[in-house]
Amino acid sequence: MKLYRYLHDGRVLESSEVPAGAKLVAPVTPTKIVCVGRNYAEHAKELGNEAPSEPLLFLKPPSAILDPDGTIVRPPVSQSVQHEGELAIVVGKEAKNVKADNWRNYVLGFACANDVTARDLQKKDVQFTRGKGFDTFCPIGPCIETELDVSSLRVQVRVNGETRQNGSTSQMIFSCAFLVEYISAIMTLMPGDVILTGTPSGVGPLNAGDTVEVEVEGIGVLRNVVA
Amino acid sequence: MKLYRYLHDGRVLESSEVPAGAKLVAPVTPTKIVCVGRNYAEHAKELGNEAPSEPLLFLKPPSAILDPDGTIVRPPVSQSVQHEGELAIVVGKEAKNVKADNWRNYVLGFACANDVTARDLQKKDVQFTRGKGFDTFCPIGPCIETELDVSSLRVQVRVNGETRQNGSTSQMIFSCAFLVEYISAIMTLMPGDVILTGTPSGVGPLNAGDTVEVEVEGIGVLRNVVA
Repeated sequence: MKLYRYLHDGRVLESSEVPAGAKLVAPVTPTKIVCVGRNYAEHAKELGNEAPSEPLLFLKPPSAILDPDGTIVRPPVSQSVQHEGELAIVVGKEAKNVKADNWRNYVLGFACANDVTARDLQKKDVQFTRGKGFDTFCPIGPCIETELDVSSLRVQVRVNGETRQNGSTSQMIFSCAFLVEYISAIMTLMPGDVILTGTPSGVGPLNAGDTVEVEVEGIGVLRNVVA
Repeated sequence: MKLYRYLHDGRVLESSEVPAGAKLVAPVTPTKIVCVGRNYAEHAKELGNEAPSEPLLFLKPPSAILDPDGTIVRPPVSQSVQHEGELAIVVGKEAKNVKADNWRNYVLGFACANDVTARDLQKKDVQFTRGKGFDTFCPIGPCIETELDVSSLRVQVRVNGETRQNGSTSQMIFSCAFLVEYISAIMTLMPGDVILTGTPSGVGPLNAGDTVEVEVEGIGVLRNVVA
């Protein structure tokens, strides 16, 4: 089932069907967004990094969440804002010390996300917080798909219709099951929390006026424009 | 005024006075916890780091929040859990692109915090997320002091009564005013959000059975035990 959130008469409503003309909003309000860096070997390589032996975790602030169709704002302090299309896991139940073989019981479903990154600041700061943390740097949506086998799904990013990233979740170094076990051993996951599972190779620049689409097979297309 | 939160008849109440026997709880429920690393030159030096030219930001997850008198749990995966006593800024109003000379209008008040850190994992991972992000790794309290000049306050940490850290907020490389401007230019701060302003030198180990106290002059004493 696909769960959407939309604005209707000034209220946020949750529904499986989007009424014509309603404005889609981000389908989740997380208390935290846990991200996994370098979880596709080809992407680690394209940025000159080794594939990690343990998941490389970082956090994006919830203030970075952007609605489907919302505008990505490039901050003046960066000269290199880039897209990173990803499969997002949406947590459904409070989760602590979950075992990998039981991971799916704690997950509501899956969404498309764009881990927008100021690449120059990410490199300069070493910590990813600023480069990944600007307002509008976490588009997510268009919906949460609750019934999906995520072991081998195509993950694509298109900019102005041209394919930039084209991978499969089967290429992940650490599986969703492993990530839920690893992360929930560190921090309690809350309903609505989001795990971004990493991006395939092909990351590249976003410029003013661009339209960027993240499509994960079986979920839908997350589309945003760039200011 | 000192604002406390306490548990009473199963409810969380906010008050300036703690009734006898009430259980204190963390005075804030942040959407994010923004932390500033190496903001005291002597502390940067003791860990072999240079003083930063810009604030070094990282995030702790809200799931790390621990009540006053709560128990810090050392995760089995770390052999080196350490205390870092800090002044915490509590945001009072939604804040974006705040100018330094206007910072105080967006701040509700100040608390004591302990940026508990698994030092070995922090060094190993490079990203601070895991080393700083375990459950119970962010004790905060005992209250929010709303009227305080924070330009020169003593920040002390005692372990089992012995003084381990003893600095002054006057030694901060980046002032509270500068930090609010810098951070709010990146991410929108929400009411209840917390900024941890960095720790003075003298960080050291926490072992099972220890009692750790963070005292910031004019606010109070944040006391936690270690399991």
